[in-house]
Amino acid sequence: MISYQSEGGVAVDERPVAPNVTSFDLKEYLAQRKMLVEAALDKSLPVVPPETIYNSMRYSLLAGGKRLRPILCLATCELTGGTLEMAMPTACALEMVHTMSLIHDDLPSMDNDDYRRGKLTNHKIYGEDIAILAGDGLLSYAFEHLALETKGVPADRLLQVVARLGRAVGAEGLVGGQVVDLESEGKSGITVEMLDFIHTHKTAALLEVSVVSGAILTGSAPDDIQRLTRYAQNIGLAFQIVDDILDITATQEELGKSIGKDVQAQKATYPSLWGLDTSRVKAQEMVDLAKDEIRIFGDLARPLMALADYITARTY
Amino acid sequence: MISYQSEGGVAVDERPVAPNVTSFDLKEYLAQRKMLVEAALDKSLPVVPPETIYNSMRYSLLAGGKRLRPILCLATCELTGGTLEMAMPTACALEMVHTMSLIHDDLPSMDNDDYRRGKLTNHKIYGEDIAILAGDGLLSYAFEHLALETKGVPADRLLQVVARLGRAVGAEGLVGGQVVDLESEGKSGITVEMLDFIHTHKTAALLEVSVVSGAILTGSAPDDIQRLTRYAQNIGLAFQIVDDILDITATQEELGKSIGKDVQAQKATYPSLWGLDTSRVKAQEMVDLAKDEIRIFGDLARPLMALADYITARTY
Repeated sequence: MISYQSEGGVAVDERPVAPNVTSFDLKEYLAQRKMLVEAALDKSLPVVPPETIYNSMRYSLLAGGKRLRPILCLATCELTGGTLEMAMPTACALEMVHTMSLIHDDLPSMDNDDYRRGKLTNHKIYGEDIAILAGDGLLSYAFEHLALETKGVPADRLLQVVARLGRAVGAEGLVGGQVVDLESEGKSGITVEMLDFIHTHKTAALLEVSVVSGAILTGSAPDDIQRLTRYAQNIGLAFQIVDDILDITATQEELGKSIGKDVQAQKATYPSLWGLDTSRVKAQEMVDLAKDEIRIFGDLARPLMALADYITARTY
Repeated sequence: MISYQSEGGVAVDERPVAPNVTSFDLKEYLAQRKMLVEAALDKSLPVVPPETIYNSMRYSLLAGGKRLRPILCLATCELTGGTLEMAMPTACALEMVHTMSLIHDDLPSMDNDDYRRGKLTNHKIYGEDIAILAGDGLLSYAFEHLALETKGVPADRLLQVVARLGRAVGAEGLVGGQVVDLESEGKSGITVEMLDFIHTHKTAALLEVSVVSGAILTGSAPDDIQRLTRYAQNIGLAFQIVDDILDITATQEELGKSIGKDVQAQKATYPSLWGLDTSRVKAQEMVDLAKDEIRIFGDLARPLMALADYITARTY
């Protein structure tokens, strides 16, 4: 049971029915949240000597993007009775970790990408050595920042966030997914199970901790954490299917990064296994499952409902 | 004031005088502690799928070395009234972070080293992509491991360790030092101040958190944390001066890594600025200062006293 319910005395069965998400202005919500997150990110990392490394870290951290991970964290913190302020350092930490993974994935020895979000990748500007170090700096700073800057949250909850964030980045998460992704390149016979492994680790793990950390900060009940975990796992895989679709259908200008890379690299993708139409259907099914999980939170779940819809809306 | 004193009722001025460190069997102490640390490291990271990344992480984590950082952490935890058990996850985390920095520093785009501790470097065995990911995995796992596995320590103390460890690794620590080190290569006119910047960040910062974290875990008083911080800063710089000396005087067999690399890379070192003899004298002065800081702890400081002496003893 989440905190506002125990305070408000609303019994579980009497929770309000699902909201009409079309009445929620997601565009305005995302724009406003993105602005808050970017202001906090900018403030979190001032440039001090040695300037090179801070400039490199800031170059990628402040390079735009949807800020989906911090926005999810802020949304679940509010949904479970918390404030934006108490979640913001964790939200920033999630974006730092995500940025680290993009910088390192783009390196010549990995995916060898020249463009990211319409800009040259970090190593194209700062060199491979500084790009590796900028990633290391962002990863360690993520933990430092959330441990030092979070106010009004008991230390044991923050420690849970530290542990979950660490797991989501490491060999059980991002790193493990990237390893299997690299190993599968150019191989034939990649199965849906292997693709699922790659993406539950490479994409869904960090989305999951983004969603769940907001609820951990407020001390949410295990049942609610479980619901939000399943919501996150479903939107995480849907998100990746949509990314694979966009790699085929979008133009470079729309996407802001090199496109058709998956095909060039002979990477197995969901569309290569299922075709485009079935991939769209599966992504929609996962979004629907995600929304079912959080219907019980009623009107308060509007942002998360709309965010789930937003993921598949990108493909049309 | 440290905990055993407030319990024991010994006034500060009546603390026992400095022990005769020659009566302390450092060799036996180091061998025994190293064995404990290596058993804990081995247990901390079992191999699960995807095996490649775990094998790569373990290859470097279990490649030997002095285990100085974990041993320092265990020593200060015991010195300030704690147990080995409560410090071991932090001790392991320190070695994971240290190993990450070695793997990344050895990469072709950084120091381009083929050997480390007498073995091929991580990227020579596993490739550059996996080596980068193994470093990332070790760094994130360090935080996860200490947050999850530490028993009997209040969460707010662990959170302080997380914050300090993060700072020691990032742009204010290891990463910042490595950036200035890379920038200074081949440049003339490197000053002692610049060398000090490099090494207080690249070496001393992690040694400092190794020493201080053990005392944070026991809830030590600020005065004692300050003393231990100054001890650590002095041995940190002495350690680097000695490393520079050994790069010139030791044989590859003795050192287990490529030697003369600093000279080849036209790196400024303390011996290149001061000469070998003066470098030895300065290292000894810092070790003496370090020992003065902890004399007040009496007999309990024997391991830290002997460890300080051990650093300069390596140069003769």
